[in-house]
Amino acid sequence: MMTKDKTQRNDVPSAPGRRRFINTTALAGLASVVACTDKSASSVPAAAAAGAAPAGEHVIAGLHPKPGELDTYYGIWSGGHAGDVRILGMPSGREIHRVPCFVPDALVGWGITNESKKVMGTKPDGSLKYTVGDTHHVHASYKDGNYDGRYAWVNDKINARLARIRLDYFVCDKITDLPNVQGFHGIFPDKRDPVDEKINYTSRVFCGGEFGIPLPNNVGTEDHSKYRSLFTCVDAESMDVRWQVLIDGNCDLVATSYDGKLAATNQYNTEMGVHYEDMMSAERDACLFFNVARIEAAIKAGRFKTIGDSKVPVVDGTHAANQDPKTALTAYVSVPKNPHGVNASPDQKYFICAGKLSPTVTVIELSRILDWFDGKLAALDDAIVAEVEVGLGPLHTAFDGRGNAYTTLFLDSQIVKWNIDKAIQFHKGDKNAKYVLDRLDVHYQPGHLSASQSETVAADGKFLGVGCKFSKDRFLPVGPLHPENEQFIDISGDKMMLVEDHPIRSEPHDFIIFKRDLLRPKQVYSLDDFPLAIKDAKQSGVFRNGKKVTVKLTSQAPAYSLREFKLKKGDEVTLILTNLDKIEDLTHGFAIPKYNVNFIVNPQETASVTFVADKPGVFWCYCTHFCHALHLEMRSRMIVEA
Amino acid sequence: MMTKDKTQRNDVPSAPGRRRFINTTALAGLASVVACTDKSASSVPAAAAAGAAPAGEHVIAGLHPKPGELDTYYGIWSGGHAGDVRILGMPSGREIHRVPCFVPDALVGWGITNESKKVMGTKPDGSLKYTVGDTHHVHASYKDGNYDGRYAWVNDKINARLARIRLDYFVCDKITDLPNVQGFHGIFPDKRDPVDEKINYTSRVFCGGEFGIPLPNNVGTEDHSKYRSLFTCVDAESMDVRWQVLIDGNCDLVATSYDGKLAATNQYNTEMGVHYEDMMSAERDACLFFNVARIEAAIKAGRFKTIGDSKVPVVDGTHAANQDPKTALTAYVSVPKNPHGVNASPDQKYFICAGKLSPTVTVIELSRILDWFDGKLAALDDAIVAEVEVGLGPLHTAFDGRGNAYTTLFLDSQIVKWNIDKAIQFHKGDKNAKYVLDRLDVHYQPGHLSASQSETVAADGKFLGVGCKFSKDRFLPVGPLHPENEQFIDISGDKMMLVEDHPIRSEPHDFIIFKRDLLRPKQVYSLDDFPLAIKDAKQSGVFRNGKKVTVKLTSQAPAYSLREFKLKKGDEVTLILTNLDKIEDLTHGFAIPKYNVNFIVNPQETASVTFVADKPGVFWCYCTHFCHALHLEMRSRMIVEA
Repeated sequence: MMTKDKTQRNDVPSAPGRRRFINTTALAGLASVVACTDKSASSVPAAAAAGAAPAGEHVIAGLHPKPGELDTYYGIWSGGHAGDVRILGMPSGREIHRVPCFVPDALVGWGITNESKKVMGTKPDGSLKYTVGDTHHVHASYKDGNYDGRYAWVNDKINARLARIRLDYFVCDKITDLPNVQGFHGIFPDKRDPVDEKINYTSRVFCGGEFGIPLPNNVGTEDHSKYRSLFTCVDAESMDVRWQVLIDGNCDLVATSYDGKLAATNQYNTEMGVHYEDMMSAERDACLFFNVARIEAAIKAGRFKTIGDSKVPVVDGTHAANQDPKTALTAYVSVPKNPHGVNASPDQKYFICAGKLSPTVTVIELSRILDWFDGKLAALDDAIVAEVEVGLGPLHTAFDGRGNAYTTLFLDSQIVKWNIDKAIQFHKGDKNAKYVLDRLDVHYQPGHLSASQSETVAADGKFLGVGCKFSKDRFLPVGPLHPENEQFIDISGDKMMLVEDHPIRSEPHDFIIFKRDLLRPKQVYSLDDFPLAIKDAKQSGVFRNGKKVTVKLTSQAPAYSLREFKLKKGDEVTLILTNLDKIEDLTHGFAIPKYNVNFIVNPQETASVTFVADKPGVFWCYCTHFCHALHLEMRSRMIVEA
Repeated sequence: MMTKDKTQRNDVPSAPGRRRFINTTALAGLASVVACTDKSASSVPAAAAAGAAPAGEHVIAGLHPKPGELDTYYGIWSGGHAGDVRILGMPSGREIHRVPCFVPDALVGWGITNESKKVMGTKPDGSLKYTVGDTHHVHASYKDGNYDGRYAWVNDKINARLARIRLDYFVCDKITDLPNVQGFHGIFPDKRDPVDEKINYTSRVFCGGEFGIPLPNNVGTEDHSKYRSLFTCVDAESMDVRWQVLIDGNCDLVATSYDGKLAATNQYNTEMGVHYEDMMSAERDACLFFNVARIEAAIKAGRFKTIGDSKVPVVDGTHAANQDPKTALTAYVSVPKNPHGVNASPDQKYFICAGKLSPTVTVIELSRILDWFDGKLAALDDAIVAEVEVGLGPLHTAFDGRGNAYTTLFLDSQIVKWNIDKAIQFHKGDKNAKYVLDRLDVHYQPGHLSASQSETVAADGKFLGVGCKFSKDRFLPVGPLHPENEQFIDISGDKMMLVEDHPIRSEPHDFIIFKRDLLRPKQVYSLDDFPLAIKDAKQSGVFRNGKKVTVKLTSQAPAYSLREFKLKKGDEVTLILTNLDKIEDLTHGFAIPKYNVNFIVNPQETASVTFVADKPGVFWCYCTHFCHALHLEMRSRMIVEA
């Protein structure tokens, strides 16, 4: 492996500093781990080496939009433990928006307003249940195999929650707790109903549980034989949890078939180990398939249990309960060592798993999985139509719609472009099939990647985004915490071309890129969207009911409808603000000094806050969101009498 | 004004959509307000019109760094009501880092770790005092008139706090509450000591209080004749409040002289009005100068009072108390209507105020202010050496070090480039002096601007950043909340050239741009920086003292030193984590599901959290910050026994 590595490196025109970091202690440490335990990683097929063009850092210019030019694609990026979702324009990589989900956002008042607290979830005392989150995978709703611009979803790994984002207003409108799940990691919406042909759009979201725990998790037992994971289905519209599947091993990423019949999760810990050495002890792990129609039929037939306080039906998807293909709800396809990532090819035929601790990618043909469920395929692993080596540390795969796949190689810090048909031919025995078409160095240690329209039937092979986990020397130093490096690559030609380095606040994992005309965002709210809306400035005032006080006011640049309002110390105040400005981009803020209140109201939006007026004095509520030449003068005096 | 406006517009090659938004209701509303009240805005001098080159949207390419190329300048941007500070690379405009200050940051655990909570400030119950903030103005420490790379400071307008950022680690290390101040807005560090020549570096930070309030503010009085503002001096090193000045009117922005003798604040509300109509009723407001040495001598001599519970000495800077120039602590120079912004020219000679509701800029010669304090200038307003018209809504001014100034025109959505000496000649009576050199349309409604090294003696006239408050049609639509548009302009030639549109999360106000070699950031911490550091993995363990439990662990990819640790329900736990990895960029995270804990430890950093183990069960603490190929497998089991 090292020989091949050296050979390929030698013809790479070195970028400044690129090699300085490659053999750091931590990664070298892993390399030795891999070398010791991964017996299959000893050589690379000649075809792969021969097929690879000289790798290098190709740089082209001119794709960065000029001032005033709009991007042609949207990107939706997860934000990792920043807990948010970011909207980028592509190909520029410009970050246009952040959508707060699981974590408070002081800018918009997410976690401050009553409306956002209701979405986020509160404790009995009204404070937020959680203020941390960890978003990894973001996917959007489908119709006929392409995005339909209704919703996106993102996971919270820390607290096992699923958030939905409305793609008309780019706001999070629902968050669902997954019961009895810890380490909720991969998600994927279905692409149509497995049974009802009329439902040609997303109606389910599948969620993978990564960490095994006692079910229910109310006993601090050390005995990990009692730990189990669940695979969860959430209703796309109501956001209720529909059902769960008890499984052996864990769930990592999730993929769904275009026909709606299959979902799958790759399993890096079929060993169900609790220490990393145990988790990597087996030479092969699995890609676990779920037969969606059969699971729902089983639930309809009452073949489920529930766990603890949860009312969600749970079916049994373990090996032991699913030996007969004709009745099986699940199917465990064997794939090499600790796979990371499962992706559906846009030709609708294959799921592809990458090996992580094996240098291979595995191509699984979906029609054969269906054959197995129908009793027509003798051995489940015969669904594997290719298992070929591509380089060290393969993680995730994207597609160009021209039959090629692009896989991140974490340890090699490369993208490898390979041809799926050629890989299948090679696997069948044609050793002349040159499946590796190109390699490109990236900077550094790539995790997820995604191409424009990659996981849709409309994959168009224009751009590739690559989430590099380490940026090291690629940007000016800013102290110990480095940004990630999202690199953008032009894949429209035979050779991959590095277009841009884009620093991004840690830590995006997955993302999607799609054509801008698939969205129809709204830029002004409707007053009717908000039950509390104050539709006329004349309805403003202070309305008292004992100690309960409602303050109603409106904003219209450069003034609030109430120039001052009086409260008494101890009042329980709910303040409702409607922005009557209708002009696009004319947002107002509302801050109350010393009362820990700040939030914004976009055009025609209404928001409210509730607080106790516990400090007497004069408090200048002011507009925090620049609105007008008299913005500084836009204030309202809150006078709290002792 | 409208005639001139039309004339100039006619020769502007219109950018797509640019004019679509210009006459929106809100701005039109203001235009009529200005037209009605601002008598001086009726015409523009022929010189200005004649001097102006045809304005337009000049676009050049090629300045955006190629992948792997480092930027040549740092930018430090305030984050508005996001409450943070952003670090950009210039000329790319890439956002490399965010420094959390006043607001929690789930990514790094700011507001979660004990160390960050101590900086932010907590209530008696240990929860954060505030979770909102509003940063506007960020400035850095000086030595010999240029940045010395020690510190930056930023204000919180909502809760009147000053934060300091260490520029070696890019972290906020101190936050100071300003007593008896509301709406703390402008800040500026001094550039040297007014008396001690050896102190040729920043040792004070000046802070302007914008909102008048009762002093102390514990009475909910409506009687605004009792409201007053304070100007505050904070010690740059200790971050203690040194002194305050009671003033008439308000403080807005702040500037300091290169000789250390003078600080100044522009006053948009000398009327001390409480409604915006009152605040704009006077035709002239003021630029208020502070004689730093005299103020400190007065305090030394005991000529101060204190306010309420505060022990900070407060001197009297009101008009009434400062009639005699020879003893005055303050000097109120008259400038036109609601000025917004005061900036010190890099030739060390002038402070420049922009009119906001007057189309003028006012140039004040500092040597004449000193003359007035020395009794050598009969009329204080004779310090004004120019007061010339530049366009509608002038706000802030930057400099190129070649004698030219660049002023944002909020209402005209333009940058005007003008020559200071020529403006002085014109003001003296030379009507042939063409002081306006160029105009450039920006997109849209610019607030602050700053040039590379602008407010230093090393102003180099390369780049200009312009914070446009509205972006409108310049980026893909992302719902009702638009990003701001930071536009970057090449000012190295005679004509300003628009280089790039850069969307940025709301809402930056001010920023500085300086050469990268002025900073020497550190990328790995020293274990000795942290009193709680666990310097050897062998010191890990669970240390119990009754219900008080200390959990000590270390991280080294791909494992934590404790694979599991046991607690009992009800334990009061302090968990301390030291990252023993030494490699640059090798940061680890630590999340505890359901316990609302997540934070990171950068290389060689130590952080701690304290919580009550109130939920029994198994909780997989996991690494949230991608670190290694076995990152997913990097976990520690927290087992809480019932």
